[in-house]
Amino acid sequence: MAKKLKKKINSMWGGRFSIQTSTIMEQINSSIAIDHRLAEQDIKGSIAHVKMLAHQKIISDKISEKILRGLVTVRDEIRNDELEFEVRLEDIHMNIESRLHDLIGPDAGFIHTARSRNDQVATDFRMWVRDSIDSIIPKISSNMDNFLELAEKNRETIMPGFTHLQSAQPITFGHHMLAYVEMLSRDKERFFEARRRLNECPLGSAALAGTSFPIDRVMTAKDLGFEKPMANSIDAVSDRDFALDFVSAASICATHLSRFAEELVIWSSEQFGFVQISDSFSTGSSIMPQKRNPDAAELIRAKVAIISGALISLLTVLKGLPLAYSKDLQEDKEIVFRVNDNLCLVLDAMAEMLTEITVNKKVLRKSAEAKFITATDLADYLVSNYNYNFRQSHQIVGKLVRKAEDLDCDLNELNINIFKQIEPDIDESVFDVLNVDNSVKSRGSYGGTSPTEVAARIIEWRKRIK
Amino acid sequence: MAKKLKKKINSMWGGRFSIQTSTIMEQINSSIAIDHRLAEQDIKGSIAHVKMLAHQKIISDKISEKILRGLVTVRDEIRNDELEFEVRLEDIHMNIESRLHDLIGPDAGFIHTARSRNDQVATDFRMWVRDSIDSIIPKISSNMDNFLELAEKNRETIMPGFTHLQSAQPITFGHHMLAYVEMLSRDKERFFEARRRLNECPLGSAALAGTSFPIDRVMTAKDLGFEKPMANSIDAVSDRDFALDFVSAASICATHLSRFAEELVIWSSEQFGFVQISDSFSTGSSIMPQKRNPDAAELIRAKVAIISGALISLLTVLKGLPLAYSKDLQEDKEIVFRVNDNLCLVLDAMAEMLTEITVNKKVLRKSAEAKFITATDLADYLVSNYNYNFRQSHQIVGKLVRKAEDLDCDLNELNINIFKQIEPDIDESVFDVLNVDNSVKSRGSYGGTSPTEVAARIIEWRKRIK
Amino acid sequence: MAKKLKKKINSMWGGRFSIQTSTIMEQINSSIAIDHRLAEQDIKGSIAHVKMLAHQKIISDKISEKILRGLVTVRDEIRNDELEFEVRLEDIHMNIESRLHDLIGPDAGFIHTARSRNDQVATDFRMWVRDSIDSIIPKISSNMDNFLELAEKNRETIMPGFTHLQSAQPITFGHHMLAYVEMLSRDKERFFEARRRLNECPLGSAALAGTSFPIDRVMTAKDLGFEKPMANSIDAVSDRDFALDFVSAASICATHLSRFAEELVIWSSEQFGFVQISDSFSTGSSIMPQKRNPDAAELIRAKVAIISGALISLLTVLKGLPLAYSKDLQEDKEIVFRVNDNLCLVLDAMAEMLTEITVNKKVLRKSAEAKFITATDLADYLVSNYNYNFRQSHQIVGKLVRKAEDLDCDLNELNINIFKQIEPDIDESVFDVLNVDNSVKSRGSYGGTSPTEVAARIIEWRKRIK
Amino acid sequence: MAKKLKKKINSMWGGRFSIQTSTIMEQINSSIAIDHRLAEQDIKGSIAHVKMLAHQKIISDKISEKILRGLVTVRDEIRNDELEFEVRLEDIHMNIESRLHDLIGPDAGFIHTARSRNDQVATDFRMWVRDSIDSIIPKISSNMDNFLELAEKNRETIMPGFTHLQSAQPITFGHHMLAYVEMLSRDKERFFEARRRLNECPLGSAALAGTSFPIDRVMTAKDLGFEKPMANSIDAVSDRDFALDFVSAASICATHLSRFAEELVIWSSEQFGFVQISDSFSTGSSIMPQKRNPDAAELIRAKVAIISGALISLLTVLKGLPLAYSKDLQEDKEIVFRVNDNLCLVLDAMAEMLTEITVNKKVLRKSAEAKFITATDLADYLVSNYNYNFRQSHQIVGKLVRKAEDLDCDLNELNINIFKQIEPDIDESVFDVLNVDNSVKSRGSYGGTSPTEVAARIIEWRKRIK
Repeated sequence: MAKKLKKKINSMWGGRFSIQTSTIMEQINSSIAIDHRLAEQDIKGSIAHVKMLAHQKIISDKISEKILRGLVTVRDEIRNDELEFEVRLEDIHMNIESRLHDLIGPDAGFIHTARSRNDQVATDFRMWVRDSIDSIIPKISSNMDNFLELAEKNRETIMPGFTHLQSAQPITFGHHMLAYVEMLSRDKERFFEARRRLNECPLGSAALAGTSFPIDRVMTAKDLGFEKPMANSIDAVSDRDFALDFVSAASICATHLSRFAEELVIWSSEQFGFVQISDSFSTGSSIMPQKRNPDAAELIRAKVAIISGALISLLTVLKGLPLAYSKDLQEDKEIVFRVNDNLCLVLDAMAEMLTEITVNKKVLRKSAEAKFITATDLADYLVSNYNYNFRQSHQIVGKLVRKAEDLDCDLNELNINIFKQIEPDIDESVFDVLNVDNSVKSRGSYGGTSPTEVAARIIEWRKRIK
Repeated sequence: MAKKLKKKINSMWGGRFSIQTSTIMEQINSSIAIDHRLAEQDIKGSIAHVKMLAHQKIISDKISEKILRGLVTVRDEIRNDELEFEVRLEDIHMNIESRLHDLIGPDAGFIHTARSRNDQVATDFRMWVRDSIDSIIPKISSNMDNFLELAEKNRETIMPGFTHLQSAQPITFGHHMLAYVEMLSRDKERFFEARRRLNECPLGSAALAGTSFPIDRVMTAKDLGFEKPMANSIDAVSDRDFALDFVSAASICATHLSRFAEELVIWSSEQFGFVQISDSFSTGSSIMPQKRNPDAAELIRAKVAIISGALISLLTVLKGLPLAYSKDLQEDKEIVFRVNDNLCLVLDAMAEMLTEITVNKKVLRKSAEAKFITATDLADYLVSNYNYNFRQSHQIVGKLVRKAEDLDCDLNELNINIFKQIEPDIDESVFDVLNVDNSVKSRGSYGGTSPTEVAARIIEWRKRIK
Repeated sequence: MAKKLKKKINSMWGGRFSIQTSTIMEQINSSIAIDHRLAEQDIKGSIAHVKMLAHQKIISDKISEKILRGLVTVRDEIRNDELEFEVRLEDIHMNIESRLHDLIGPDAGFIHTARSRNDQVATDFRMWVRDSIDSIIPKISSNMDNFLELAEKNRETIMPGFTHLQSAQPITFGHHMLAYVEMLSRDKERFFEARRRLNECPLGSAALAGTSFPIDRVMTAKDLGFEKPMANSIDAVSDRDFALDFVSAASICATHLSRFAEELVIWSSEQFGFVQISDSFSTGSSIMPQKRNPDAAELIRAKVAIISGALISLLTVLKGLPLAYSKDLQEDKEIVFRVNDNLCLVLDAMAEMLTEITVNKKVLRKSAEAKFITATDLADYLVSNYNYNFRQSHQIVGKLVRKAEDLDCDLNELNINIFKQIEPDIDESVFDVLNVDNSVKSRGSYGGTSPTEVAARIIEWRKRIK
Repeated sequence: MAKKLKKKINSMWGGRFSIQTSTIMEQINSSIAIDHRLAEQDIKGSIAHVKMLAHQKIISDKISEKILRGLVTVRDEIRNDELEFEVRLEDIHMNIESRLHDLIGPDAGFIHTARSRNDQVATDFRMWVRDSIDSIIPKISSNMDNFLELAEKNRETIMPGFTHLQSAQPITFGHHMLAYVEMLSRDKERFFEARRRLNECPLGSAALAGTSFPIDRVMTAKDLGFEKPMANSIDAVSDRDFALDFVSAASICATHLSRFAEELVIWSSEQFGFVQISDSFSTGSSIMPQKRNPDAAELIRAKVAIISGALISLLTVLKGLPLAYSKDLQEDKEIVFRVNDNLCLVLDAMAEMLTEITVNKKVLRKSAEAKFITATDLADYLVSNYNYNFRQSHQIVGKLVRKAEDLDCDLNELNINIFKQIEPDIDESVFDVLNVDNSVKSRGSYGGTSPTEVAARIIEWRKRIK
């Protein structure tokens, strides 16, 4: 929650202005209610900047030490919730510098040498997004672990595989879970790439043109954990690609989670009954015990809308914006924070919910034994063993299915003679083909649904995640 | 800012549940941090509901009065910031009912007779959006007034009219301002329509199926200012069209404001210098006095991105959502509140900024006197007076323009003989046609840029707005 | 499909240009592949314009008649697919004028007197959108009719009403269908409003400033079916609100359709089995007869994404666009055409699909008789008859439900004595309350699910639609 | 343009269906009008598949060769525009297989052994996107080259650097151009990453579960240029991340281009006059020679809206979609094709337009010499040379600026004595600091605007691009 903010005149740039800014302007202009979340990064960035200024003899060691001590105090005050931010000081940078001034006097004025708010905020924000990614990646890993756990426990659990939400072929539940492990691993890659690409330091770009002070940008970059300084000062203060990369990766990740959330909602309906979501992640009715509303799953499903809406907002903010800095860019932080908060929430919720899902194996198996679900197996069997081509074998199976329909039975309930009328060489072994366990076992092609393949993939994933 | 929230077990539906909900679930599920803004509407709705229940003899007058007194107390507590909301109670409805229970004891339990949270929240939210519209419409009117004021003052101020940001024809500044009055008047219409369409009452739809209690839905509807009760209880609890209408109207309105904001940014650049935004709506530099950053205009330009992103979020939340209520719908309120807050801010900022814009008439006029800007007037003159058709006259003017270019002068600096070579009947009156004042005056077709037309439109608008 | 386009130099504005436009520029700039769909409207607009010019004596009757005859010929050629459009002529306006020139010679040049492409295209496009709305409204009505038909046939068909996709209370299928009638009726309103608001005529605004010719804008406006001329010429050529209104209405309408499409996908799964989509609207497998892939429903579900993506595209195009005309606006047509085509397709598909849905009444009823589904009825009964308040009655029902769960039975299978232990006055009539038919009948509040209420609503709708 | 399509019954899956699909269903269901663009990839995929089947002895060499010859013929027919696609055959896969059947008879039926349309289309589409990326990357490089060229030529061209579209500090035009080189290089990275991530082969995943045939997925993967086969067959047929990655990268790239497009529109206005866009990329007026409408720039600016709208469409299609294949996914191709076509167009247009931009060096320099533009330089000079801190030096400069304003002159026009009143040690060298050339030269920090730095970056980029 935003801290309470008191107001006072911002004398930093306002001095020359004849009229006080209007209240509405103050409201539209001040960002402290949002950007106070950059406090840690801002102080960290200032510490690195001041150390570099001293190292380069741009400021004296004595002043540097004074400022550094002051900054540590401000940081402690903020951590202890003792610093009241002020709307009039506009943003986190001014609030911190103003407090520093209160603490150490006019020498605070040396802190802003060879930098500007433009490169300062770009640096802070990149560090914040980097920290966010560093907290999101383990959350994705937790989800992968928990999907793997579910896959492990259900390597051999048979369920219907769906296309168009219609039963298509029997698969294993473990195999279905592994599909999400694949998706999430791509999400992790995307965040890693976003992190790598953002990891160049804007500090030292000043307002937009660089500076005439003999600064060492490599030093501050390294000190702040960046790979290197950004190579163009105009780009450095106007670029928000790192935010786009972040929000884009978040949108795709949230899309994946929404797909499983939808499956959970459908699967936990009474009509499906495939799984039961734990009490902790459902809400219910005091008088309708069977009602377990999958609220968490529904919210996860909905949150992708918030995140992808934020993506389009950020793209639209940036659309057609001339270089270098424009105030429009101030919207970036609220957008990114919103995305971060929502994504973290759904990742945490999904990870925990996964550990408490009860898989109704009997219901799944019964659903998988739906009529004709192994018709494809029979068709493949005819191709493999009797030299029919694919289209021919489908015609034959079509005829057998019609026969079974006439007799109101499934394929495996047909008399062997009916098969023999079609293909005299067929023997009782045909019934093995029609069995769902055998069907699943037979799909041993790489990446297929057979328990052996599923087990092999789980082992690989366990190794990769470690 | 959201109030601090303390936590306690939600015993309302949780009784049957064996495990406490997880902390993360509590976080994902609780909406009080958002929906506390519905407090006034919720209590208003409850008051109407309880009065109706008593009128229909569903509850006794005695209990009704007790509840009504209790509700007024709760309302006062909330208004005075004395009620601390609790996350565990999930939402504003439960927080209020729970407080009512604290105040009047078990009879509070009668309040929820013949209703459900589903119709309750739908009713509250509709009233909230209606209140929001009622506050937005006067803000739009203020903007219209202020554009009209600017138009009035600049009925005869000549400026270049642009297409493709290239000077095309001289126009009056007042005429340009009136274009925004037109846009905003359509915005007002949209909000009126949204208000009219939302003004049907869901209350009495209960969970989704209606109720067996002999309620009077017309009575509550009228009492709460609705036109009538909604005609289908399932629609009543699952419909969020009213939110879509609101956010859609807001997106279009914000788009209009962003267009003028962009013009302000460009016009207040040193290169254009058409207008000066007041100190109150600019930020500057203590050492660069000429720098007047149009921050407010830039933020207004950016905000449309936040609002239209919210629109796509809401559409995406609703996409493919089965009836009736799903938890996904909970996201609707954060979205609508965000849109409301941003739209109100930009409407207020724009309205106030408009009153303080300085129009640099000299610069505008000079810019309007750009070379060949009245070439179209000459072409029209040839058509009107010498029987040329449109394409012929354009060819003639093309030749004259080339001649002027060769002589490095404007059309009005050409010798009369040059005109006569083309068309012997032309006399000195041709130079009147080339004058920007005459050009503007001549465009007296309905809705055209002539000062007379502009004045007529202003008078009409003044009447209509009153 | 776009016609084949041949190329030739556009001599209309290109004369002064020293270099031929680049091929890529031609490609980016030419809109004929898109805007050829405005042909009918363009010619209609020209006819009205020319008649007005003659009536106002701006052109002679002789020339007017010549042009009008020529235009009719061009229109016939286009209707008969005999006119080959040319990319070099950029757009439909130039293609038509150029063809007119071929047919009637230089007098074709009079057609463009007192107008510009800016007001011309704005007029054409408004007429096109108006025509589109006029074709969409009956399609919505057809859908309403077909939902009503389904409602009529299933006034008494009992099904489970869902919240969170969990059975909540028994409802009638007819009642559920009527929810969509409500939604669609709001859609119709939105399109009516969009039509009313767009129905002002830009023609006569010329490039942006109006014109000095003594035109009669009221005459052309009336002739083209507009309410009146637009009141500001700058607004007239730069406004695209009418397109936004259209696309916004389409997005909301498509959202409604997507919700029913999702229900159809879920309901036609084997696990639900609530409905069967006809062969005409399914695809299948030659060997899996039970597989009826609800392709049409899935595509309807997906199309909302195309339409709402188009909405955000249009908003983003317009964001921050200075007045008056900019080339960015050219994108509007592709967007609107795409929305129109997709919306018409889904409206047609849904309307036809609705007529062929088989409702599995037995399955629905069985699903509605799920355990404890009438627990709310019991709670209401206790409130109505035994003076318990809502929360108390819920506690009592909660106890009874637990008892039933212990005995592994439903509430209606409990011995009457168990009820009496709770409330001695309860008699056998309690079992009536637990019956789903009675439950549904009892919900006779206005807009409730009872067959009587449903029948009343159907009658009202039948009247309103006629 | 889509080919003309003739219609005939689709006997492939339709055989079991009792009723012909409805015309509207055919329209909604058929994708050939869109997916015919996958023809090359489809045949390539089939060739690899058939070779593998033969290699694995699943089909005979003889049949394999027959099919391969047939496929080559079909490919040639398509390349030569000789094959008429049929709507009834739904999609490109069926059209090709059907044609193969016409050519080689029933043995065509072997082609679909051990695969399904689900893995087939996923493979085709991945190859198509890969091909698209391979064509986009050189287009981005061309743009980088052309920006570098402009930078090279304008290493020392001085212009005002903007923040908030207000002159902030003098920069070099070359430096500004390099900012876009940075952006585009990140775009290239994104496409490379998208390519790498998509480069796993779905083929062999069959409908969703894998297959029992002894296929070699590594063989087909390698043959088709993929890194490896996808590891989960369900993921393989339901994943569209590769399309999201592509569209997301395109959106960010288009955003960059839109920013420069906006600058071009503003810069080529008469008021700015910074650059002149060539005739080839402008449109004009036959009578207003000064009017050079920057149509291409405007369209580039607008296209980002089409592309980012497509991104949100694709995210919305995928939102909450259960695994594995659903028909909703069919929308992916139209979306991706639209993005590809628009992005290629704007990349080509921008690249070519860049080569023909005239930079008005004089105007830029004059604009850069705006009053007080080197005030920051003076402040830095005071910090560097006279031990003032940043805030103090700003106060001093503020005073000097006010003095200059009073005297209506610029800082460099102040008498040296006025400087000395502030700081007695100041000498005439202060005027060097106020010179824009010196200002630009002094900003030699890494990535700064000094011509030396700009030259160094250009050299680096030239090496990296090669």
